[in-house]
Amino acid sequence: MGEVFTAPIPVRFAETDLMGIVHHSAYVVWFEMGRIAWMGEVGVPYTEVSQLGFHFAVTGVQASYRASATFGDVVVVGTEPTLLRSRQICFSYNIYNASSKTLLVTGSSEHVCVDVQRRTAKIPHLVLERFRRGVEKLQSR
Amino acid sequence: MGEVFTAPIPVRFAETDLMGIVHHSAYVVWFEMGRIAWMGEVGVPYTEVSQLGFHFAVTGVQASYRASATFGDVVVVGTEPTLLRSRQICFSYNIYNASSKTLLVTGSSEHVCVDVQRRTAKIPHLVLERFRRGVEKLQSR
Amino acid sequence: MGEVFTAPIPVRFAETDLMGIVHHSAYVVWFEMGRIAWMGEVGVPYTEVSQLGFHFAVTGVQASYRASATFGDVVVVGTEPTLLRSRQICFSYNIYNASSKTLLVTGSSEHVCVDVQRRTAKIPHLVLERFRRGVEKLQSR
Amino acid sequence: MGEVFTAPIPVRFAETDLMGIVHHSAYVVWFEMGRIAWMGEVGVPYTEVSQLGFHFAVTGVQASYRASATFGDVVVVGTEPTLLRSRQICFSYNIYNASSKTLLVTGSSEHVCVDVQRRTAKIPHLVLERFRRGVEKLQSR
Repeated sequence: MGEVFTAPIPVRFAETDLMGIVHHSAYVVWFEMGRIAWMGEVGVPYTEVSQLGFHFAVTGVQASYRASATFGDVVVVGTEPTLLRSRQICFSYNIYNASSKTLLVTGSSEHVCVDVQRRTAKIPHLVLERFRRGVEKLQSR
Repeated sequence: MGEVFTAPIPVRFAETDLMGIVHHSAYVVWFEMGRIAWMGEVGVPYTEVSQLGFHFAVTGVQASYRASATFGDVVVVGTEPTLLRSRQICFSYNIYNASSKTLLVTGSSEHVCVDVQRRTAKIPHLVLERFRRGVEKLQSR
Repeated sequence: MGEVFTAPIPVRFAETDLMGIVHHSAYVVWFEMGRIAWMGEVGVPYTEVSQLGFHFAVTGVQASYRASATFGDVVVVGTEPTLLRSRQICFSYNIYNASSKTLLVTGSSEHVCVDVQRRTAKIPHLVLERFRRGVEKLQSR
Repeated sequence: MGEVFTAPIPVRFAETDLMGIVHHSAYVVWFEMGRIAWMGEVGVPYTEVSQLGFHFAVTGVQASYRASATFGDVVVVGTEPTLLRSRQICFSYNIYNASSKTLLVTGSSEHVCVDVQRRTAKIPHLVLERFRRGVEKLQSR
């Protein structure tokens, strides 16, 4: 419904391990690419957030692995926010094989807004507003 | 109680990100170092498992971030198994700052035993037995 | 002249370090993406090479850093082979900022063909021929 | 002669690739651990340099791969400075298998001192002096 997709991500050779498949930690990095794509889509590039002096520090991450990606595959990350509060934002993710559309990994992450001293802070008003409008716009697609 | 600790892990410069702290995906790699240390401690080096033609594929991972590690810090991972079945093993992790003993990150992971074709398989009997004896020995410390 | 370009590569947050810029090891991974794009362009996807039981083991890599990429940037890797022998292939790389076209990093890598036992081997005839035809075709563009 | 060694570095599972050996980019990260160990040994922990507002930006890196490390191996990095100027420092590296003492990879890196704006800067006097005394002390061992 409100899922935003990244550009296709070709699996990197460096992301594989000796099992011959993508190392499980790579998907956590792909989640990050997913939420950054989401922020771009709703009009708040993450670079703007950090230029304002804020970051969305990760307070939790969870991944469930159903099928593996391997070198030669291209994946795509679908991202949706699941919670949006004055200081907190949460996302859920679906990582698909871009050609077969197989769902490979699902996951979620939780974030708090922090300032340059890395203290919990309110999400800047402008950012929060755009997030809210983004959620509405995406859900009504 | 039954926690096994890794050798101290100095934070690598390459593990930091532009927030100035360790990137959250690094802890997932450290969890892996934790369970490998645990396997070594109970007498089943992971290299033996893979030489037998088996792997413990990651089916799930979860991390909760309480405090951050940064460059210059040394961390240590404490690992404990939470479930041991014929085809499955689960672990919980605590990552501490090695000097202040502050608990930085807690987490868990779930694994199924797979063979060289990456099909779910029974954990080899010898390995399972040593895991069981390891759990008992560690809990009675 | 004979340079083959990767698809645009958005810098990943995870690729930055506490200096606020991309960690220098990331470019080495991007070089790899460059030569894989080159192989795809000349009709020898790397997955085919590995399915035949061969790999191009890295025997040397060199990088010169002129300007830095940072989060929010998109880069592109230009790759050209510099040597092609029966058992060896070498590449040179230019990494550009995709929007400003600034040259960020130049580099090179050397590879020997190895078999599944990781012993030096001749590049399979079919692969070598396609590489040769690829070089010719690209140089005559 | 003047080589400073890191603590033993156990190869991480995540550092391997589908060739079954350590990915070549991992050694570049290990070089970094080598020069940081060297700085610590001569009394200038890198954290001090960065707290003073300076960094040693990498301007070049080179690696030659002779033998591979794999999961289960422990490696150690030997580091020596090869040039020390008012704004520049260069290092050479030898990476060994810690148990067999086999030389796996040799390499070098070049750095310029930069300030917080990432402009080339003089190495702070105190740091330079300790580097010089460190070189002398290590060479006279």
